[in-house]
Amino acid sequence: MVAARANVSRVAVSRAFNPHASLKPEKRELILRIAQELNYTPDRAARALVSGRSHLVGVIVPDVCSHWESQEIDALTTALQNQGFATLLFKTRTDYSMDEKLLSYMRGFNPDSVIAFVENVKPATLARFLDRAVPIYVNYPQTDEDAEPPGAPLYDRLNILQRDGIDQAVALLEGFGARRIAYVSGLERSRADGARERTLRRVMADRGLEPPAVVRGDFSYEAAYQATIDLFRVGKGADAVFAANDVGAFGVIDALRHELGLRVPEDVKVVGFDDIAQSHWKSYNLTTVKFDLDARVRALVRLILRRLEDPGAPRFEETLNTRLVVRGTVG
Amino acid sequence: MVAARANVSRVAVSRAFNPHASLKPEKRELILRIAQELNYTPDRAARALVSGRSHLVGVIVPDVCSHWESQEIDALTTALQNQGFATLLFKTRTDYSMDEKLLSYMRGFNPDSVIAFVENVKPATLARFLDRAVPIYVNYPQTDEDAEPPGAPLYDRLNILQRDGIDQAVALLEGFGARRIAYVSGLERSRADGARERTLRRVMADRGLEPPAVVRGDFSYEAAYQATIDLFRVGKGADAVFAANDVGAFGVIDALRHELGLRVPEDVKVVGFDDIAQSHWKSYNLTTVKFDLDARVRALVRLILRRLEDPGAPRFEETLNTRLVVRGTVG
Repeated sequence: MVAARANVSRVAVSRAFNPHASLKPEKRELILRIAQELNYTPDRAARALVSGRSHLVGVIVPDVCSHWESQEIDALTTALQNQGFATLLFKTRTDYSMDEKLLSYMRGFNPDSVIAFVENVKPATLARFLDRAVPIYVNYPQTDEDAEPPGAPLYDRLNILQRDGIDQAVALLEGFGARRIAYVSGLERSRADGARERTLRRVMADRGLEPPAVVRGDFSYEAAYQATIDLFRVGKGADAVFAANDVGAFGVIDALRHELGLRVPEDVKVVGFDDIAQSHWKSYNLTTVKFDLDARVRALVRLILRRLEDPGAPRFEETLNTRLVVRGTVG
Repeated sequence: MVAARANVSRVAVSRAFNPHASLKPEKRELILRIAQELNYTPDRAARALVSGRSHLVGVIVPDVCSHWESQEIDALTTALQNQGFATLLFKTRTDYSMDEKLLSYMRGFNPDSVIAFVENVKPATLARFLDRAVPIYVNYPQTDEDAEPPGAPLYDRLNILQRDGIDQAVALLEGFGARRIAYVSGLERSRADGARERTLRRVMADRGLEPPAVVRGDFSYEAAYQATIDLFRVGKGADAVFAANDVGAFGVIDALRHELGLRVPEDVKVVGFDDIAQSHWKSYNLTTVKFDLDARVRALVRLILRRLEDPGAPRFEETLNTRLVVRGTVG
């Protein structure tokens, strides 16, 4: 009916509803207007059976409400919508691992792509639960851990190079006189956190500094708050604290100021990691290593589209860098 | 194959994959274990065509990364997963309205339910884009605006009663000597904000207080920060500031302390609304009107399940109350 009324072919109608398909803008507009008048929408369940595409992208996250992840999901959902995909959220268990029942359930939706972290579900496990999607993993490459076991399942990669931003942060801390730098870690099993700590150690060693005192957090405000109190009351304190993420850095700052009576940055300097939107709030005004959200989302969308264009291709990779954003908690 | 190997009927296998269907726990476990060994998952696209259920719940939000919404999406996704549904996110335009192209696109996924706000998309508009789902609206009932136009489309309601919490907040402010209470509003078109401001006016009038000075924000930290500076530099200031949400209250506190050199709570008292997780952070330690997240998510899930049980029933409603959480920004 839509094709007849618009005086176009059925193929044109189908293309009009597919944001990837090329079609003259006037033609698409006409078809969509008539389709709307007729209250016509192609059923996606039916189309998925024919086209093999679900137009769903699964995102596996431990915490939607963590600041970093919520900002990423927000930007990613907008970008995916613009490309004709909807975001399907899957939450991991409280220990951050992925329930196999949930994976099997996710498979039923037959997503076109899945974005995941190694600490939540291993590529070999995930591959068993995907019929055709090639998952995308966020990776923190380190020269000594980049080897892949032979026969590993295919997955695409977004590589984050943490070295530059951390190097700039330590240089700034040193430039303002800090020598004893402590690290308030993230979650123990997180690869992002592991790579961050190892990079910090290497950067400090290269600069001839003593290795950092490490106190364990879990990326939360509360754990970083308690870890900071331990560091100064039980441990030997520090000139500067590097937190594994911004929210942790907020906990560090509040513990220093409100519990330990220390001034930031005069007595202790603080650096975070992420540059979430809250970092510029005046109570914190945090100096932090930025990992650009827009660039990350653009890279993820590119990986999805490249893979859909060419399902059989070998690994696709995108690589992003970090840099220091200087605000008020150092110097 | 699964049925044969488990020595059960095909119906039992189908029930095992449907979390709503009753089945002996041992039987379900056996079937799921065998299904996993055989790498079998029923395809949801195929099942949706047969059962008419997509197991998708659409959530229409303006900002995934607003603190309140991210915490709600997180809790809702967990609760829905436990009931066998996946969360499908749809973002509104930057003016918070819902794009009709996106609505038509959402319809294609044939969601079992959709959760929405009137300021993002009106029930009459949304109804045109849903084949069978009855949407759920979050509602802020006021005696004078509860009339429904005849022939309005069916939708279910989660009612939030704001009066109790706001009444408790104003009583506490008055008890600590505040008389001139200002309101830093949320987004102009938001019904939640409108109802909040009207309720505050009524509560203050009932207590014989002058009407609040109102400065316009938009639920963001930045707008509340600027509005507070205007209130004190251009306007006449206030003894206390009631912010439309917690993030706005953080902006109010930071503007008072870092821009205007005023102490909170000694010089100016501050109250927020929501009780998001950040409200207990030491830099803010905010006294706020709590609108219980867990209770809200449980009510939403109940509304979804009741409607799926009985698609033809008249309106379902759930009603929740608010209460004051006292921390450090008043008295």
